[in-house]
Amino acid sequence: MEEFVYTHKVQYYETDQMGIVHHSNYLRWMEEARTEFLDSKGFPYARMEELGVMSPVLGVEISYEKAARYGRSAAIFLRVESFKGLKFEISYRITDAESGEVFAEARSRHCFLGSDMRPVRLESYAPEVYELFVSLT
Amino acid sequence: MEEFVYTHKVQYYETDQMGIVHHSNYLRWMEEARTEFLDSKGFPYARMEELGVMSPVLGVEISYEKAARYGRSAAIFLRVESFKGLKFEISYRITDAESGEVFAEARSRHCFLGSDMRPVRLESYAPEVYELFVSLT
Amino acid sequence: MEEFVYTHKVQYYETDQMGIVHHSNYLRWMEEARTEFLDSKGFPYARMEELGVMSPVLGVEISYEKAARYGRSAAIFLRVESFKGLKFEISYRITDAESGEVFAEARSRHCFLGSDMRPVRLESYAPEVYELFVSLT
Amino acid sequence: MEEFVYTHKVQYYETDQMGIVHHSNYLRWMEEARTEFLDSKGFPYARMEELGVMSPVLGVEISYEKAARYGRSAAIFLRVESFKGLKFEISYRITDAESGEVFAEARSRHCFLGSDMRPVRLESYAPEVYELFVSLT
Repeated sequence: MEEFVYTHKVQYYETDQMGIVHHSNYLRWMEEARTEFLDSKGFPYARMEELGVMSPVLGVEISYEKAARYGRSAAIFLRVESFKGLKFEISYRITDAESGEVFAEARSRHCFLGSDMRPVRLESYAPEVYELFVSLT
Repeated sequence: MEEFVYTHKVQYYETDQMGIVHHSNYLRWMEEARTEFLDSKGFPYARMEELGVMSPVLGVEISYEKAARYGRSAAIFLRVESFKGLKFEISYRITDAESGEVFAEARSRHCFLGSDMRPVRLESYAPEVYELFVSLT
Repeated sequence: MEEFVYTHKVQYYETDQMGIVHHSNYLRWMEEARTEFLDSKGFPYARMEELGVMSPVLGVEISYEKAARYGRSAAIFLRVESFKGLKFEISYRITDAESGEVFAEARSRHCFLGSDMRPVRLESYAPEVYELFVSLT
Repeated sequence: MEEFVYTHKVQYYETDQMGIVHHSNYLRWMEEARTEFLDSKGFPYARMEELGVMSPVLGVEISYEKAARYGRSAAIFLRVESFKGLKFEISYRITDAESGEVFAEARSRHCFLGSDMRPVRLESYAPEVYELFVSLT
């Protein structure tokens, strides 16, 4: 299982009055990393949606270790942990891009829905996307 | 031209490391006020969208006078300034709900699009929505 | 252990192009519920910060059951599950305010930091806040 | 007056249920461009804040021409239009990074505050920052 790295520069609007990145933004960085990861595979998420496949988040677990701050960048290490036809799971290690210190560790779970927002069997509904996810694990 | 008031409680996640509300959030409060205003007229924006009418923002002008802070509430005074069949314009005065001090003054311009994202003549396309906007000015 | 309810109206800017509320916003609603809960106890979080106590999020677990949509309201049921002097834990059940259907279930973990961002023993550092949390569990 | 270009990849969480980028996010992209611009000058905004200088937004004017969508990137062309010791003004042209089509045109006005949030005369308060802004216009 390959590890993919995506770098996100902390933005001012992501901070809160505690002087650190608001914790909700890490879920957005995880999404950015997924977008970038699929782009790197030559199969953008936008194309998946054009094929009528959506992949909402079923759940997230995240532990915050050290606060990220404006002026720094975060390196997000992403790994597809499992894919079982109907669902997949991704893990993330979010670190300070310079020092390597861990900002957070997280996991997200996802499923596949058709354009009618109902679960689909990917193998028959969108074989291209199925092949993609098989290749990712 | 009637004035409508909507109250928004400042949220922690709306602040930034300057210790004040991030300026981009005022545009969101203005949208909240529009939602609430249409609800108060018995014609929710969600129903407009069901009728195939969307109303994107064409432009915004905003002047920030005084910073809003966590722990306070903002009173947003909204007024439909003009409606000309294809477009409408709204003004906002955003104040401290307690002290009345002005946080910001703003205007937004909007048009009407059909579900294909093209401009529509509201009077024929969606007479109900047309009547609503006539009644607002 | 008492249950507290907070109602949040879904905002347009909280939706994404899947037509549903973006999953990151639930963490913000959970924060809104915490703010409202402390307000209801007569001890706003802003006052805690004035006393030099901050309470960052250590971790979140959330399962999304059903997508929330614009035009609806969410009822967030909050409960302080534990408080152990240094840390506390809160659980949330987020439901459709009308139908009662469950949108999501979640937990968040928090600690207490002083104004220097270091962990504090609440009992000696800020007895008022300590008493508050003892009363909440 | 030099023009600076910053490229922002549209993120999924920036879209709304109209299927386009929510209009409030353009103000965040403008801020990202300012951050990147100052970094390119070797004088990060984080360093300005360390020197006790903050530079809040006094006002924004923005016209939306064409909706930006997920899967595209925006090129933000930034120009410092004026600097008068106490205030400065920046203009932005936000375009589709590939096609060059204009998404939006905007201006923002800013002042300088000291760490006590009061206006400062930059030339005496923080000569380094003053020199920087002189060099930008």
